[in-house]
Amino acid sequence: MLASTPKPPYYAVIFSNTLKDDTEGYQKTAHRMMELAEQYPGFLGVESARNDIGITVSYWKDLESIREWKSNVEHIEAQKLGNKKWYKSYRVRIAKVEREYGI
Amino acid sequence: MLASTPKPPYYAVIFSNTLKDDTEGYQKTAHRMMELAEQYPGFLGVESARNDIGITVSYWKDLESIREWKSNVEHIEAQKLGNKKWYKSYRVRIAKVEREYGI
Repeated sequence: MLASTPKPPYYAVIFSNTLKDDTEGYQKTAHRMMELAEQYPGFLGVESARNDIGITVSYWKDLESIREWKSNVEHIEAQKLGNKKWYKSYRVRIAKVEREYGI
Repeated sequence: MLASTPKPPYYAVIFSNTLKDDTEGYQKTAHRMMELAEQYPGFLGVESARNDIGITVSYWKDLESIREWKSNVEHIEAQKLGNKKWYKSYRVRIAKVEREYGI
């Protein structure tokens, strides 16, 4: 599903990654993180796809909302697990959405 | 492959979409568009994944580079075909990358 986001400006966190071979527990944690993110009032939506690489773009009201989400205790634990166990590589890009259009 | 991008700021075009059932010709055109985009001096890299939805994030030096790419004649033809034949829905979000980190 594509995300329905409000009129810009708002923020995007572009999270692209590759996984190691052993992804035990990854799917469950990724799902839980989305469940958790959705509870934040500044969370606007998310889009996610994976084949060779994974891309998850989450949309946020402002930088403060992203900061709060990044510092969620359960999320911090997941980030640690990700760094240690699941991700071969990743990039996080914080970007201000200035314009949006589509069909 | 994850994109190797320079130190921010730079721009991201987040293109998320769903396809119709008949995607004849889509793959070839998508591939050609990437080949073409890479020739632009302002093109910094691209990341792409698809399963339920497709997400292609291309990175650009500045808004002017994105404008030039958007108005490329061959790209305009592809956009028309996409609107008419391939895309069930899409969103294009133009965003300024302010921060980047990763492993």
